[in-house]
Amino acid sequence: MVKVCVVLSGCGVYDGSEIHEAVALLLALQKAGAEVICAAPDIDQMHVVNHMAGQETGEARRVLDESARIARGKIRDLAEIHAADIDALFIPGGFGAAKNLCTFATMGTNCIVNSQVERIIIDMFERKKPVGAVCIAPVIIAKVFEGRGVNPVLTIGTDKSTADAIEGMGARHENRTATEVCVDEGNLIVTGPAYMLAENIGEVFEGIEAAVKEIVRLAEQQKKRHASA
Amino acid sequence: MVKVCVVLSGCGVYDGSEIHEAVALLLALQKAGAEVICAAPDIDQMHVVNHMAGQETGEARRVLDESARIARGKIRDLAEIHAADIDALFIPGGFGAAKNLCTFATMGTNCIVNSQVERIIIDMFERKKPVGAVCIAPVIIAKVFEGRGVNPVLTIGTDKSTADAIEGMGARHENRTATEVCVDEGNLIVTGPAYMLAENIGEVFEGIEAAVKEIVRLAEQQKKRHASA
Repeated sequence: MVKVCVVLSGCGVYDGSEIHEAVALLLALQKAGAEVICAAPDIDQMHVVNHMAGQETGEARRVLDESARIARGKIRDLAEIHAADIDALFIPGGFGAAKNLCTFATMGTNCIVNSQVERIIIDMFERKKPVGAVCIAPVIIAKVFEGRGVNPVLTIGTDKSTADAIEGMGARHENRTATEVCVDEGNLIVTGPAYMLAENIGEVFEGIEAAVKEIVRLAEQQKKRHASA
Repeated sequence: MVKVCVVLSGCGVYDGSEIHEAVALLLALQKAGAEVICAAPDIDQMHVVNHMAGQETGEARRVLDESARIARGKIRDLAEIHAADIDALFIPGGFGAAKNLCTFATMGTNCIVNSQVERIIIDMFERKKPVGAVCIAPVIIAKVFEGRGVNPVLTIGTDKSTADAIEGMGARHENRTATEVCVDEGNLIVTGPAYMLAENIGEVFEGIEAAVKEIVRLAEQQKKRHASA
């Protein structure tokens, strides 16, 4: 059984984790026999958006507290999670990935990645453990590896401006359909479009299930390699 | 294609709709080929619970606004939904069903059901259209039909005190496992335990998918009967 850390960014597509993607990920991981640990940074959300009106409310909410709604209270501060203790990491999308886990939504390619998010991604890479991301979350991976000579291959689907931003940060972007995945075998990175392209929750689940299959395969492969090393 | 209204009660197991159940329901309905309309009453939540600490926060949040997070903004005020326009109604669980859609969490069998929730359930029954509910939500159905001579057959799993409360409101309770459903063919009511018994999100999805299969079957059957009447 592989242990996968799901990194959440709040609760709701406009200011946190996209809920369908996060739940589809938890379901796909459970069906694949993985053990799941949910985590989120213990920081303020960039802002709170009323999902009915689509407007900022002026409220303050914490990313970890709101992410706990998706995790049914079973969640840990990302600062407590170490690459040595998990076999894979996976980041679902939603604007929270681009507003709370990094600042891509407001700063584009000049964005800053949350320090704990950056730390865990780099740690996973150095320990040769796989990282997955869907929807807009692959921009975090592009930014983290910018200037490190890694040049990961990623997909967010087909959106030209986001794909250009990813390439602008030194990664390579490949187009994929909603239910396809992009697997960078060498860098152990799995990405998929999810709601960047999916037209319904069924396509989201299908794409995420495909990504989970690849993440679990890579995690098992690396676990064996580490055990025999 | 049948049109199913999903009635949400906020966003998060302790003060709103249980998120895994709500998303599993949306996914199962989409896979079954149903058209989905999300709705929620436009009222204040009973309270807001920090899902990390498990304690009340003192904040005020609206049920419709928070439910919109699960629905990605595509949601309507329940007051606008009429039984004539839909083929089935389905209520997922979470404490929101027992705190916002009715007051069962604080008042037990003496609870009061939200007027819009009561209206739509009675309307569905009178028009012979099916209603589904999982987890704690079947208590709403028991209360709505109390004293109306309907005596629905329901399940919330095996929890003795909740089952006793359901029977105390004049319904009949039958035990079921996490992935089984209870179908009251005569009254067109489908219920299942979901997280009242499920030990993981996989069991939740399996149980809800089974309930959705029955709801869609009943909705199609009744649609045909209404068309030929």
